[in-house]
Amino acid sequence: MKRFYFDHIAAAPLDARVLEAMMPFLAEHFGNPQSLHSFGRPARDAVEEAREKVARLVNASAAEIHFVSSGSEANNFALKGMALARRDTGRHLVVSAVEHPSVLQAAKSLERQGFQTTAVPVDREGRIDPERVAAAVTSETVLVSVMLANSEVGTIEPVEEIARFCRSRKIPVHTDAVAAAGNIPVDVRALDVDALSLAADRFYGPKGSAALYARRGTRILPLIDGGIQEGGRRAGTENVAGIVGLGRAAELAAVEFDGRAARLSALRDRLIDALPRRIERVTLTGHRTRRLPYHASFCVEFVEGEAMLLALDLKGFAVSSGSACASKTLKASHVLLAMGLDHALAQGSLVFSLVEGTTAEDVDALMEAFPPVVERLRALSPLYTQYLEEKGK
Amino acid sequence: MKRFYFDHIAAAPLDARVLEAMMPFLAEHFGNPQSLHSFGRPARDAVEEAREKVARLVNASAAEIHFVSSGSEANNFALKGMALARRDTGRHLVVSAVEHPSVLQAAKSLERQGFQTTAVPVDREGRIDPERVAAAVTSETVLVSVMLANSEVGTIEPVEEIARFCRSRKIPVHTDAVAAAGNIPVDVRALDVDALSLAADRFYGPKGSAALYARRGTRILPLIDGGIQEGGRRAGTENVAGIVGLGRAAELAAVEFDGRAARLSALRDRLIDALPRRIERVTLTGHRTRRLPYHASFCVEFVEGEAMLLALDLKGFAVSSGSACASKTLKASHVLLAMGLDHALAQGSLVFSLVEGTTAEDVDALMEAFPPVVERLRALSPLYTQYLEEKGK
Repeated sequence: MKRFYFDHIAAAPLDARVLEAMMPFLAEHFGNPQSLHSFGRPARDAVEEAREKVARLVNASAAEIHFVSSGSEANNFALKGMALARRDTGRHLVVSAVEHPSVLQAAKSLERQGFQTTAVPVDREGRIDPERVAAAVTSETVLVSVMLANSEVGTIEPVEEIARFCRSRKIPVHTDAVAAAGNIPVDVRALDVDALSLAADRFYGPKGSAALYARRGTRILPLIDGGIQEGGRRAGTENVAGIVGLGRAAELAAVEFDGRAARLSALRDRLIDALPRRIERVTLTGHRTRRLPYHASFCVEFVEGEAMLLALDLKGFAVSSGSACASKTLKASHVLLAMGLDHALAQGSLVFSLVEGTTAEDVDALMEAFPPVVERLRALSPLYTQYLEEKGK
Repeated sequence: MKRFYFDHIAAAPLDARVLEAMMPFLAEHFGNPQSLHSFGRPARDAVEEAREKVARLVNASAAEIHFVSSGSEANNFALKGMALARRDTGRHLVVSAVEHPSVLQAAKSLERQGFQTTAVPVDREGRIDPERVAAAVTSETVLVSVMLANSEVGTIEPVEEIARFCRSRKIPVHTDAVAAAGNIPVDVRALDVDALSLAADRFYGPKGSAALYARRGTRILPLIDGGIQEGGRRAGTENVAGIVGLGRAAELAAVEFDGRAARLSALRDRLIDALPRRIERVTLTGHRTRRLPYHASFCVEFVEGEAMLLALDLKGFAVSSGSACASKTLKASHVLLAMGLDHALAQGSLVFSLVEGTTAEDVDALMEAFPPVVERLRALSPLYTQYLEEKGK
């Protein structure tokens, strides 16, 4: 059976060129980058070269890039590290209601240490209103964290406007750019943020390798205390091959994401246009145009996301019903609820996220396969039967 | 030039069989283990299989193994997670003075949150006295953390005795087994510890992959909050290839470490016996017999460790002057100072740590190369000249 991968938000495949770059640091150059002898040198040089490449991707300087093991770690590092470093200044955080669980739970963990969090609501398209952020900020606020793009609904957030306001109030801003970096242009200077999280596996790099940009001079405490790695800000022997892979993926993304974004967003639009014409009572979630190029997400009424996911899987289509970090539960997504969708509708969530290599034929195959899946599942739904009866009247 | 690797404590080479096991999870099976579709399944199965293998290595159950990104992360997770989970019970920690920086610095970070730490001293061989630990424990103590083996001086610590006492006082015990696991038998039930850190790169597995054993029922807060991975205890997309590599390395170690330990400890003893006969004023550091099988460490009087390291590097020998996490500084090792060595002597520290593949010929080559290095460096030392003059009198 031919298989189709529409689950970029869970993981992108590893680019063969990235793997090629990693191989010498798995097989051959096993030295510890901190070692002063000749086995350490190639590893150290490779780590620093990767740092330059990641810095270039987001227009940072190399010294501002800190390698970590996942987007979740980057988010925890930023939230806890920056909040705790400034705890004597104040103990209030502002986040959006649609942040990734790693941001929201890090904030919760800070609440156990005396912090308070305001979660700013979003509109029906999942957009954070910069004025709501401004209104949430108090004299006690030590950090604002708003994501650059939402991986469940694809919406790109007005981080630049939010950062501009925060700059005027001298409040540091972190942005979770895990879903965005390597896929759309991300420029830390233009955004004017103090910290930014990105992860290699979202742009064809390896799992287990991510980075936190922290602007020079940013006060941040380590999440992982110990040795001298990463300028003393993140202890632990460097995952050299993973870091090299992140660097290579960043280098490739910087050159290729424009073309890729153009290709994928055309396919995305094809999907967004076609689906509601093939299936009734289907709603696009997230913003129609200000969205990730690879991302199409919907709520399908009268059906559960997970049921559709499993039925599509049997037909060879890998899709997602929400964030991989929150899946395996029938709980409705906090993102969709924050957008004002009702509970029943939110449970019918499905995300089609495209990867390099997705073709128009793949999208068409999905469009063929999906309507019968929905139809069959809806036939089992008492609510749908009731809807049909009422419609027939 | 033939190169000789004597720096196991910084990193062991990746076993080709481990790399082979990892490859499919780099190249092919790129799915997210949390994904419910067919791309997620092989990744999920592989992660769970690796968990079983790591559990078997240390006689734990799979559910007690938590994958993390480094030994330093495992140590931070244990120290912070267990201390903060029990902060309402008390705010006192006991560690040894010779712990890894990731344990000592994690304790320091807890001190900023109201905890107090007692660092128990060690004897001249680097051994922690269980009675000193018992004496340090108070009614406020919520965690004792003592390492299983010290990577700078090779000494194996009496963790079992310490744990027995702590059990009687119902105080949880963590042990940093990063230098030990996969190299000597480690059995969490026999040790009777509540938590134990291990890292793949010390037993021929990949960098960036490690684990924390936490006994079922252990109260521990996440270090990385967020998604549902690792039973909700450690958020972040799993480093699947790294985890698979850790699992395979654990599987191989379980079968092979007895033979390897016998081979390497014979070579280690050859080195320990030969060196002081070839060079005067050389002292073994750490315990003579209760030490890691791959580990020989010395202090060479009148010379600096780093100078010897660099000179040996030019001759093709990779050695270490201390922990890779603390290197690149001329500061004397906290481990050696805690053992009562004076500052000058501690600066002449050198660690020769053997790996699979090290031969008697390699050791002999080192024994040939090393004395002239010491001689040449000593010729530059005014203290050595003075010593010779006094000796000549």
